[in-house]
Amino acid sequence: MTTTAPVTAAILVIGDEILSGRTKDKNIGTIADYLTAIGIDLREVRVVPDEKDAIVEAVNALRSRNTYLFTTGGIGPTHDDITADCVAAAFGVPIDVDPRAKAMLLERHKPEDLNEARLRMARIPQGADLVANPISKAPGFRLGNVFVMAGVPAIMQAMLDEIGPTLETGAKVLSETIEAGNLPEGAYAGELGAIAKANAAVSIGSYPSMTPNGFANRIVVRGRDEEAVRQVRAAISELVARLGGGTPA
Amino acid sequence: MTTTAPVTAAILVIGDEILSGRTKDKNIGTIADYLTAIGIDLREVRVVPDEKDAIVEAVNALRSRNTYLFTTGGIGPTHDDITADCVAAAFGVPIDVDPRAKAMLLERHKPEDLNEARLRMARIPQGADLVANPISKAPGFRLGNVFVMAGVPAIMQAMLDEIGPTLETGAKVLSETIEAGNLPEGAYAGELGAIAKANAAVSIGSYPSMTPNGFANRIVVRGRDEEAVRQVRAAISELVARLGGGTPA
Repeated sequence: MTTTAPVTAAILVIGDEILSGRTKDKNIGTIADYLTAIGIDLREVRVVPDEKDAIVEAVNALRSRNTYLFTTGGIGPTHDDITADCVAAAFGVPIDVDPRAKAMLLERHKPEDLNEARLRMARIPQGADLVANPISKAPGFRLGNVFVMAGVPAIMQAMLDEIGPTLETGAKVLSETIEAGNLPEGAYAGELGAIAKANAAVSIGSYPSMTPNGFANRIVVRGRDEEAVRQVRAAISELVARLGGGTPA
Repeated sequence: MTTTAPVTAAILVIGDEILSGRTKDKNIGTIADYLTAIGIDLREVRVVPDEKDAIVEAVNALRSRNTYLFTTGGIGPTHDDITADCVAAAFGVPIDVDPRAKAMLLERHKPEDLNEARLRMARIPQGADLVANPISKAPGFRLGNVFVMAGVPAIMQAMLDEIGPTLETGAKVLSETIEAGNLPEGAYAGELGAIAKANAAVSIGSYPSMTPNGFANRIVVRGRDEEAVRQVRAAISELVARLGGGTPA
């Protein structure tokens, strides 16, 4: 379903292991790419520890001001997996073992192996829809505008692929990149700012990166109006060429 | 300087390019590793777009509840670099071209090349201390408990190295990892939870990852009390061995 109103999203990454540096998050970039491709604006990301108060506060802050909130992490069988309980608390709804989720776990585990810890993975807040997990069966879920997904990147990706088609999407953001190469940002910043000011329908970013040969700068024009993006791109290409840039460093 | 009270920190990543997925953040993991190594607890991370209201709100929320706040991104010469102005607004202090920062820029640029755009990089909130930038000279700064750093990873790293020795640090967190290998989380989760409950002085996390051969699980014990960490590690090693795990998948 496509709408003309902006569709926005936030990501909440839940996990001490990201904050300690032990695990390097890969899910933020994956979800960002995915949402951008389908016309959803990712507006904010937060990473919080495995602590109830922090999770509940973040869930409520982010779900109230975005069309969607996507969480990753904290839905396994161990004591530090508290995401489902925290989402239930954030919504003020009860949570218990869900027969549909239990049936999914029984596709992987024999009944005699479905111990109390594993049954934790079937605890789903009341009123939620399940999100299938083709890899290890323990489901994610959707409650209201919040999607709760696994933290393991391969499972998160599989859940996202299932969720994607159910999302309301906006007009796709078009993006054009102009290579400024080793032309210094300070050489084009003044005129680029004037172009940005005169073209409020697009957003223009200038992104330096470093190579062994020095800075390599890129200018990115983003917007939903194809003609506006095309015109601004042309103006910036002209600016960069005039200043002698445009060759990769 | 080392203190016995917990020293906490937050990170604020500023940039549309992270939220669009175009750039994959590397700074969160680097700063997380750095802070953990010197005994500072990273408590929260946020990523926000290049928009004044969002930046000011996040700066004030994060600086008020942590010992330190580290920001990355948005301190270049282009129109989308608004971090310094937003930090000044968050603190309610004036901002203008700082003679010390201008002198640093003149180490790299000839006076006639120090145009208005480049002078933006010398705009520093009143009362801030500068953080040197050995790579491209444009400085970061410290205002109160907020450190403002570049977004380019190599420059951020250099700034962090300069900031590090000035930070108040806490007792270092000791971390021990027990390889559970392909032993399923669900097999040890119940007893692990009991160990966690009985040992509140440490935090215990269980982290699944996927390999071509299936799950590879690791259990991590973290705490500041060496003896407590050692004892819990031994108890978990015994548990994992008893259940037949401990070999990498």
